[in-house]
Amino acid sequence: MVRASTIASQHDARPSGAPTAGHVAVRRFEVHEGWEQAVVDACRNRPGLVDDVDGFLRLDVVRPREHPQEFWLLTYWVSEAAFQDWHRGHGRVAGHAGIPAGLKLVPGSARVDAFDHVTS
Amino acid sequence: MVRASTIASQHDARPSGAPTAGHVAVRRFEVHEGWEQAVVDACRNRPGLVDDVDGFLRLDVVRPREHPQEFWLLTYWVSEAAFQDWHRGHGRVAGHAGIPAGLKLVPGSARVDAFDHVTS
Repeated sequence: MVRASTIASQHDARPSGAPTAGHVAVRRFEVHEGWEQAVVDACRNRPGLVDDVDGFLRLDVVRPREHPQEFWLLTYWVSEAAFQDWHRGHGRVAGHAGIPAGLKLVPGSARVDAFDHVTS
Repeated sequence: MVRASTIASQHDARPSGAPTAGHVAVRRFEVHEGWEQAVVDACRNRPGLVDDVDGFLRLDVVRPREHPQEFWLLTYWVSEAAFQDWHRGHGRVAGHAGIPAGLKLVPGSARVDAFDHVTS
């Protein structure tokens, strides 16, 4: 498995026929003060279990500058069905692999919202 | 200019040394009912003036399923400075090129938030 740690420019040549995203799942949560760096490290060293899932296209993890204890995980999928298949199956468990031991999210802060992909 | 209309899988080979994103600008706005498709079309046919700007990496446009009149434009940059240079310069004007004639945003709905890129 080749895992890209960078975001490629749109100027890169793309293989023709690359799959088009249809569905974007945005998972947001907030960690308690002092846990930020551990979560950053965990995200960067994530086991990558989702990367080989059918229909998965890419993941971006970002943090709002104004709320650095908040993390947003954006995953792009070929379809909502692909995401749901993963989420209903092992995804929920696999998605938590690599989370720092002892990490507690701020209660009520976790949410997942569904988005349609318009263009890139 | 090669413009990708698809989101590449992380399994694609990446050129080694591809630039890493540092800054993500998330622009959100809401349009009035009936304008959704015009904005979708405009985003898909955007003139792409930002694509060749120094430090620009990629753009994703997504819409929350629960609020389909809302549009989120996520732009990835090598640094906040690169984004600010563009935004302070011609970006504000160029970014509006291609917007459907007569489009009015819902007052107070437009915002831009700064994010740090953690990983992809």
